[in-house]
Amino acid sequence: MSKPYVIGIDIGGTNTVFGIVDARGHVVASDSIKTLKNADFDDYVSRLKEGVSRLISANDAEEKIQGIGIGAPNANYYTGEILNPPNLPWGPVIPVAEKISNAFNGIPVAITNDANAAALGEMTYGAARGMRDFIMITLGTGVGSGIVVNGQLVYGHDGFAGELGHVIVKRNNGRICGCGRTGCLEAYCSATGVARTAREFLELRTDSSELRNFPIDEITSKDVYDAAMSGDKVAKEIFEYTGTILGQAFADMVAFSSPQAIILFGGLAKSGDLLLKPLTEALNKSVMPVFRGKTKVILSELRESDAAVLGASALGWEAKYRADNPPASPKASLPVEVHQE
Amino acid sequence: MSKPYVIGIDIGGTNTVFGIVDARGHVVASDSIKTLKNADFDDYVSRLKEGVSRLISANDAEEKIQGIGIGAPNANYYTGEILNPPNLPWGPVIPVAEKISNAFNGIPVAITNDANAAALGEMTYGAARGMRDFIMITLGTGVGSGIVVNGQLVYGHDGFAGELGHVIVKRNNGRICGCGRTGCLEAYCSATGVARTAREFLELRTDSSELRNFPIDEITSKDVYDAAMSGDKVAKEIFEYTGTILGQAFADMVAFSSPQAIILFGGLAKSGDLLLKPLTEALNKSVMPVFRGKTKVILSELRESDAAVLGASALGWEAKYRADNPPASPKASLPVEVHQE
Repeated sequence: MSKPYVIGIDIGGTNTVFGIVDARGHVVASDSIKTLKNADFDDYVSRLKEGVSRLISANDAEEKIQGIGIGAPNANYYTGEILNPPNLPWGPVIPVAEKISNAFNGIPVAITNDANAAALGEMTYGAARGMRDFIMITLGTGVGSGIVVNGQLVYGHDGFAGELGHVIVKRNNGRICGCGRTGCLEAYCSATGVARTAREFLELRTDSSELRNFPIDEITSKDVYDAAMSGDKVAKEIFEYTGTILGQAFADMVAFSSPQAIILFGGLAKSGDLLLKPLTEALNKSVMPVFRGKTKVILSELRESDAAVLGASALGWEAKYRADNPPASPKASLPVEVHQE
Repeated sequence: MSKPYVIGIDIGGTNTVFGIVDARGHVVASDSIKTLKNADFDDYVSRLKEGVSRLISANDAEEKIQGIGIGAPNANYYTGEILNPPNLPWGPVIPVAEKISNAFNGIPVAITNDANAAALGEMTYGAARGMRDFIMITLGTGVGSGIVVNGQLVYGHDGFAGELGHVIVKRNNGRICGCGRTGCLEAYCSATGVARTAREFLELRTDSSELRNFPIDEITSKDVYDAAMSGDKVAKEIFEYTGTILGQAFADMVAFSSPQAIILFGGLAKSGDLLLKPLTEALNKSVMPVFRGKTKVILSELRESDAAVLGASALGWEAKYRADNPPASPKASLPVEVHQE
């Protein structure tokens, strides 16, 4: 066999992007289909298979594909299922890994949520190469996270661990969050959180701001960024507020897993020092003395256009590895088998 | 070789307890020495060796000892050192594992902090047998934690992970904590935290309480427990307050690692429903819907008198295992070795 490849598939609410990726993290070729065209999952899989197969043929990769990795919302690594996805029409429990593996002649398939895939991508090809302990934070419409401990993704006992966008940063009178609770990190430090902060600041304060030129309900985090970059004081304070909350939340994450780095990905992460400066200050001020200055806050090294496919593809290598090395018994890590009396 | 044994050593500020433990978690024999008698660490090691050797001889165990595990405050698993221990006189950096291994003819020695040792003990012999993902919370003078993910203790990149007693539960105007910051979980939910809550409640309120019979600065968590058990309303509310904060903090921990169980150990854990009821209510109310009802809160199954030695001894098996199976390269878990361009 010549150069091995994997397939990375990112199932989004609108588009499904897929690509062929080599072991060095080059996206050899990629394409996409509309996710929602088919309300029936089997029809979707047929169409996906068609698209992926076309890509494989066009790149003479028939014999080279080692595995398929899939990133999708609410995906469960252990069961291979997507559960109650908020923006997908295929039913409450979708056996994605099984169906796609069957469609591709039994090739190993693994699936996880988008943020976990991003963490794997970063560890395999990006800023976390060689790191055994880090946390990936995706700052997009929401706040996602993928946690790596001892070189392994943290899935938890049920496959749903790593919901750091939903730690509580405001215990009382916090903002309503999409998860049904209040005060979550995501309600403050996502792109939509920044826009909410803008509305709150503009309503509660009277000082002038460029942001007052926008209809208040239409302000986006991008508008706040642009205003801050042009020197607007209120806009800058919005980023300070956001970065401070994020840094304080990071301090608690450090107390948990003491990561070598926290890696930021997504639209908001591109705000540069506007966000990073208050974030780092708050982290250093808030973190336990024993951890002070130890955890780096860095940006993803993956190109945004490639990241979803790369992240998913990293899981493709793992699917192959898992198929070749079936997991040992749960007690395998214990030197002595201990029996209950 | 007949039945294998390990030695567990728990280095406390006052006493050092040690014991011979078999693979089923029976403490075959145990003894202790005063920790502080020697200001010089080498003298301490000589005395420890004397005590342990006497125990070994008395039990005909010379040929059976596989390893030594040590639990100690501020102990670093990776380096084998104790760093800046608050209550020990031997200097800022103490190479404990090396010195004790040398004293015992090179036998494998591993060291970690007390709460991590407790988690290992629970996983090897106690309530967490067979669990791959759980969190151990020790509720004593302070709040300690040992986190297990994928069947492995979480040490973090620097060996100091798992400081869940120092996540922030009160962001503003929080109580001063021994770690130098304010608002830590430990300042509210340890035994001393309960006593502080008692003082706060009694000072801020005017309703009658048995607790007013105590000199306010001398109230202990035990006094609060006794009063609550005899029906005192203020004392019961103190436990509700404590349990609620703990349950809310647990909800954030669940969002991180989605453990199968959170296991409580230590004096306060023995408060029964006084603590567990508000704790469980707060956890179920605070936790993200996807995790609701999944994480059990249970009590340690190790006898308190044995737990420190058992926990340390569990690490003794690991020391032996580690010596027999040197760790692979950091990248070993990755299916493909990826090179930077």
